[in-house]
Amino acid sequence: MSVRAGIVVTGTEVLTGRVQDRNGPWLADRLLELGVELGHITLCGDRPADIEAQLRFLAEQGVDLIITSGGLGPTADDMTVEIVSRFCGRELVLDAGLEATIGDIVTRLMARFPDVDAEAVIAANRKQALVPAGAVILDPVGTAPGVVVPGTPTVVVLPGPPRELQPMWQTAVATPEVQAAIAGRTHYRQQTIRMFGLPESGLAETLRDAERSVAGFDRLEITTCLRRGELEIVTRYEPESEEAAAAYAGLLDVLRERHGRALFSEDGALVDDQIAGLLAGRRIATAESCTAGLLAARLTERAGSSAYVAGGVVVYSNAAKTDLLGVDAALIDEHGAVSEPVAEAMAAGVLQRFGADTAVAITGIAGPGGGSEAKPVGTVCFSVALTEGATLTRTMRLPGDRSDVRERSTTVALHLLRRALTGDS
Amino acid sequence: MSVRAGIVVTGTEVLTGRVQDRNGPWLADRLLELGVELGHITLCGDRPADIEAQLRFLAEQGVDLIITSGGLGPTADDMTVEIVSRFCGRELVLDAGLEATIGDIVTRLMARFPDVDAEAVIAANRKQALVPAGAVILDPVGTAPGVVVPGTPTVVVLPGPPRELQPMWQTAVATPEVQAAIAGRTHYRQQTIRMFGLPESGLAETLRDAERSVAGFDRLEITTCLRRGELEIVTRYEPESEEAAAAYAGLLDVLRERHGRALFSEDGALVDDQIAGLLAGRRIATAESCTAGLLAARLTERAGSSAYVAGGVVVYSNAAKTDLLGVDAALIDEHGAVSEPVAEAMAAGVLQRFGADTAVAITGIAGPGGGSEAKPVGTVCFSVALTEGATLTRTMRLPGDRSDVRERSTTVALHLLRRALTGDS
Repeated sequence: MSVRAGIVVTGTEVLTGRVQDRNGPWLADRLLELGVELGHITLCGDRPADIEAQLRFLAEQGVDLIITSGGLGPTADDMTVEIVSRFCGRELVLDAGLEATIGDIVTRLMARFPDVDAEAVIAANRKQALVPAGAVILDPVGTAPGVVVPGTPTVVVLPGPPRELQPMWQTAVATPEVQAAIAGRTHYRQQTIRMFGLPESGLAETLRDAERSVAGFDRLEITTCLRRGELEIVTRYEPESEEAAAAYAGLLDVLRERHGRALFSEDGALVDDQIAGLLAGRRIATAESCTAGLLAARLTERAGSSAYVAGGVVVYSNAAKTDLLGVDAALIDEHGAVSEPVAEAMAAGVLQRFGADTAVAITGIAGPGGGSEAKPVGTVCFSVALTEGATLTRTMRLPGDRSDVRERSTTVALHLLRRALTGDS
Repeated sequence: MSVRAGIVVTGTEVLTGRVQDRNGPWLADRLLELGVELGHITLCGDRPADIEAQLRFLAEQGVDLIITSGGLGPTADDMTVEIVSRFCGRELVLDAGLEATIGDIVTRLMARFPDVDAEAVIAANRKQALVPAGAVILDPVGTAPGVVVPGTPTVVVLPGPPRELQPMWQTAVATPEVQAAIAGRTHYRQQTIRMFGLPESGLAETLRDAERSVAGFDRLEITTCLRRGELEIVTRYEPESEEAAAAYAGLLDVLRERHGRALFSEDGALVDDQIAGLLAGRRIATAESCTAGLLAARLTERAGSSAYVAGGVVVYSNAAKTDLLGVDAALIDEHGAVSEPVAEAMAAGVLQRFGADTAVAITGIAGPGGGSEAKPVGTVCFSVALTEGATLTRTMRLPGDRSDVRERSTTVALHLLRRALTGDS
């Protein structure tokens, strides 16, 4: 790739690790999609000298594009625009139109805070209307505008909050100034495959074999990673090369043949997307113990999920399992709350309670306490029930800490649900 | 602080965001504890020129200590030790003792993989026994040794896997070479304050005033950030300075006086911690519509929460609100599902259903659809009910997208719960 970029992430809270940086990885993905090579990500605190040093470093490395995140707020420690302006050798000028826009936004926002002096806040926000002369203004998503400063390198200045940065990046990329900066990039095709139920080392071995058996394998740039308990395999290649396209087809054949059961997505779709499709026309209800609502919350992440999610119960105590879901107390006594019979009774109970046609139950030991030799921390029982009769029940031992076990349990539940709904049990 | 450090994180999988870097934030925390100021974290891929450029950049910034992570494995793209050696102007030399140690580890490891040629693996690992002349060797935790190269700056080379890096860092810090590099560090006191219900710009205004009114204000290093809908204010100062301690006390007075209602934590405790304390001896149940389990999940993040969480219901549909919680269908017809009367009925219903003494209900419009002029997206009604009689009901308009509204709603709910339980309503 012949166009190179660098990312400067600012913010003392990010440098010190109090807030996890989500912008560097997100921008890295976007650059990859564009075919722009990312050389460096640098993080520093809200100190002008450090931010300026990083900009200069990236310029010395010959990058064509620098993207900064953070430091656009109204407080005194937000200085990125001023520093970038100086770095690019441009004056800071007040943009009257932008000032009016910010004033409007702040006035609306202040309506929720009657005790705060709106005039004072507008004055504080006025500095956000100062932009480098000749820069392209990116309208605020929150209250902070971004800018694109054309030049060598071209600098794109974006706000820190991810929900403001992400749409603003899309606007920035569409500007002629950014398009000019990345004009020499190489276009790649990127394909994503997802697998579940295969260890990373098993995949590594298959890829080593494929390297020998698939012609043109070296035309493929493959990265693999473990994400939310699933394996994600991203392959990039030049779409004009027939050899590369054939090699990708060959790789896919090998994966299908060896790991057909584990391979659940060839088009990059998440299991969540697949479940949303499979639940169309159905009504699902959840019964959760150790995950305590995480599965219901995950099922309703998508807009429109109310069409198929009836609801759910969090039955943390044994009494709640009995009172709300009609789980026989004797069954709990006999098998324990974390057992397949109890998971099945929970699924049957919630199916009936909500008048649903699909139910998922989860009961497990998230830890750190509560484990035993027979049922160590990480033991989780799942049951999927459908009114048409099929019930799928499994017990798994999941690795990690309390938070990992809870999160991973929702992924396992979605995969069992997928299998039940597709008849692949 | 008079001792400064930089961190170089290497690895293409980390740069591209496929694997989240955990070493930068972890090391940042350790440096903060030590009183060493962190200036920069830089990330780059497995490219010698990029790694070397970052080392040089940090040296030019005058840091006393550089810590690297990653690139110590046996494969061809693991080159950190070689690059650091060159950067420090030292020859690479084979350490016979280290070679034997690595050989032993690899032999033990290979016993689990009978198909692999152990001799070939040992040969591949031999390069890991090459270290810069005069460096201090840090024994492997996995198979990769680390090194400390004394000088200006002193460079500590650590492996990428966090479970190897973390114990090895403790070993590195104990060496006389690292102790010498950080000898001039300053010990700081760090205090965290949390506020809720105040916009960031309102705080900025107060801090500007405090700068004028509080003597010694410039002895305080203050960073503020918005986190999960709350404001976090972290202040650091030299504990030996009476002026700085007095300034901090003065700042706290100003914040208490101006924003007493918003200021909920003076000791850094999260609202989640406070709620866990307040719920001791009680039984809580939740009734959630738009948050669909997120509040129940948040209440149970802590181990031991089963002592006070009975459970909850996710009543996504109106039918579920009526069937499970006994919310009068006529009430929903009259006021709408997102209304204070329905929130109150949900709280009352779940209180009774679980035999709890504390209940929280949330019903709102998370979007993107479902909004109206009277009840736009982001409108969320909350009700907290206690058996001792008090009920606290509020309607808020929360900013952001579907995910933000849902997440923010759990924060608002916890704050209302805090007020109800402390009688501050």
